[in-house]
Amino acid sequence: MKHNNLKEKAIQLHRDHSGKIEVVSKVEINSEAELSLVYTPGVGDVCKEIEKKPHEINNLTSRGNMVAVVTDGTAVLGLGDIGPGAAMPVMEGKCMLFKNFANIDAFPICLDTKNVDEIVAIVKALQPTFAGINLEDISAPRCFEIEDRLKNDLDIPVFHDDQHGTAIVVLAGLLNGLKVVGKQMKAVKIVINGAGAAGISIAKLLLHAGFTNITLVSLEGVVNKSEDWLNPSQQQIAMVTNKENIQGTLKDAIIEADVFIGVSGPAALKTEHVKSLAKDPIVFAMANPIPEIYPEEALAAGAKVVGTGRSDYPNQINNLLAFPGIFRGAIDSGASDITTEMKIAAAYAIANVIPENELNSSYIIPNALNKEVPKVVAEAVAKSALKEDRVTVKSS
Amino acid sequence: MKHNNLKEKAIQLHRDHSGKIEVVSKVEINSEAELSLVYTPGVGDVCKEIEKKPHEINNLTSRGNMVAVVTDGTAVLGLGDIGPGAAMPVMEGKCMLFKNFANIDAFPICLDTKNVDEIVAIVKALQPTFAGINLEDISAPRCFEIEDRLKNDLDIPVFHDDQHGTAIVVLAGLLNGLKVVGKQMKAVKIVINGAGAAGISIAKLLLHAGFTNITLVSLEGVVNKSEDWLNPSQQQIAMVTNKENIQGTLKDAIIEADVFIGVSGPAALKTEHVKSLAKDPIVFAMANPIPEIYPEEALAAGAKVVGTGRSDYPNQINNLLAFPGIFRGAIDSGASDITTEMKIAAAYAIANVIPENELNSSYIIPNALNKEVPKVVAEAVAKSALKEDRVTVKSS
Repeated sequence: MKHNNLKEKAIQLHRDHSGKIEVVSKVEINSEAELSLVYTPGVGDVCKEIEKKPHEINNLTSRGNMVAVVTDGTAVLGLGDIGPGAAMPVMEGKCMLFKNFANIDAFPICLDTKNVDEIVAIVKALQPTFAGINLEDISAPRCFEIEDRLKNDLDIPVFHDDQHGTAIVVLAGLLNGLKVVGKQMKAVKIVINGAGAAGISIAKLLLHAGFTNITLVSLEGVVNKSEDWLNPSQQQIAMVTNKENIQGTLKDAIIEADVFIGVSGPAALKTEHVKSLAKDPIVFAMANPIPEIYPEEALAAGAKVVGTGRSDYPNQINNLLAFPGIFRGAIDSGASDITTEMKIAAAYAIANVIPENELNSSYIIPNALNKEVPKVVAEAVAKSALKEDRVTVKSS
Repeated sequence: MKHNNLKEKAIQLHRDHSGKIEVVSKVEINSEAELSLVYTPGVGDVCKEIEKKPHEINNLTSRGNMVAVVTDGTAVLGLGDIGPGAAMPVMEGKCMLFKNFANIDAFPICLDTKNVDEIVAIVKALQPTFAGINLEDISAPRCFEIEDRLKNDLDIPVFHDDQHGTAIVVLAGLLNGLKVVGKQMKAVKIVINGAGAAGISIAKLLLHAGFTNITLVSLEGVVNKSEDWLNPSQQQIAMVTNKENIQGTLKDAIIEADVFIGVSGPAALKTEHVKSLAKDPIVFAMANPIPEIYPEEALAAGAKVVGTGRSDYPNQINNLLAFPGIFRGAIDSGASDITTEMKIAAAYAIANVIPENELNSSYIIPNALNKEVPKVVAEAVAKSALKEDRVTVKSS
């Protein structure tokens, strides 16, 4: 689809439907008798029941299946700080996907404030309304503090999808990619181009999952232990990555790497970079819509496995494979948090959807629309939650 | 329906459906092509369009038809301060009614804070998400300040239903009731029992509508100019009501009154009170579920027209007659506020649904489930909004 055509079609579709979500009743009201059950006077008894037994809110209202998709519009897609109103189409899209892929009711909360304290206070005040918080398109480093504080203060799962969703699907892709190229987790050298929210989160998850040799490259150069870095998160990740303490730029870090992970920008990876990679390298070029390198170019330069963020190439690294099942599993298990172990369990579940005998360089990641994925992810996440005993008291 | 039976049925219905609302997609996603329109990459163009033309948010997203039902759970039905979680069934019920009666998407926002500044800040921050704010079950006098500040600061309609919804339906009932008893607006003496949010709001609207002789009775006695009153709103209403500056209690104020309006509590109106009213009096006993006086008792004591808040008696004064049409009209006209004139227009529209030749003492208010009502209310409100020129720039 040509881009101009896509633009017109997308805008027209949004205009035709006046957006993409609606709030509907699950119960009919056709008589006084029905009205007296869903509204006054009958509803008063339901209120009193919840007042007496607060956990019943998740059984007697929609709250138990309701997730907020929260943004301040500061880092929307690749568009940057376009504001909370202009961010709404993405948030609504996310809500649709929650419903379509995991039968979760999700509602967009676009906030007209960039103040971290205010955002934290607002989301905390919304806890009676939602069973989970999906943070979305909030710029770094504010997103780190917001997520940390909310995870600490709330009893419900909090998940910044731009960080963790991407990280989970990258891990899933790597698990399968390594099988295809016949390499071991502990032996591979990984370069992540981009040291923002996604890059740092990918690095952290890969380290937790068992990868040991990871180097990040920021706009200011290779993240190392000898220099000062932009924010606490970069400082922190510098301490546990870049074993050889490489300095310089991408071209210095990428030599003999087995894996390139791009969360940077269009055309950031050159043919000569690919040529300097180790044998049978894996290249994930996830910048959208224009990747760090186009797959045909990467393959021609020697890449063995290539993934992108695009649906029109093989191996699409799409958050949609993670977030619906993650929240489904967290909610179903009554988990009070989404832990690293639950994220790793989700990645293995995504990877294992593809039978080993079907794995090949063009098929290491399931299709984003595969409805089997959210199911197995939810099961894996719920199982992990129960194993970790991070489950809050569930209602009878 | 016996109360215990109603309680069990109401709780079971809420449990069976896990609440009463859900968030659904208006657009299908069955292919990569569809996904690329509702989500990345196509959605990015929709975001950019709104960034360029902010008013397009109401055409390209669900925001243009989305109303927040906001509470802090401090004054829920007659149950008092039961908290934001226990308030949820009422808020969901309200959202259902918005959808069923006016095709408005409404979403419950139950806030875990009672701080006026915080509530105002949160609702202001939510302006990119909602096209209107319905405040609900917030205790007086906080509800006055919250509504005033939000009306002042927001460009979208703000409406505290407990105050104005009730007032509008009471006015509608009085307009028809006066025809039945053959009395004139300027000639009747009105006593309002209850000087909280609803009572004060009723008094204000009736004064604006042309009634002149109104006296409020609070728990502390007849509201008059000679004593100090609980809060600024009571002080203010004391200045414009109680012409004769009556002091004492209900029994002192009610003598020779033509209209009794009860927004107080069960059994607050005695037979001897009714007997001391003027000839052919109108009695609105709206306490719920147990009214100030039961209709049969009031009629036996000489009342000519009786209304209650209950659906099992004639003349039910139900907010449902007002709020769906009010918001529909305000949204459709692009009004930036809901003014007194719009409320009065709504009351006349409700009253006029009943043809004059069908009016009688048991039929002064349309049935709450009459779907004609929200339509005519919406039209009247939109017309009033346009006349007042309180309409913000509407998108093309």
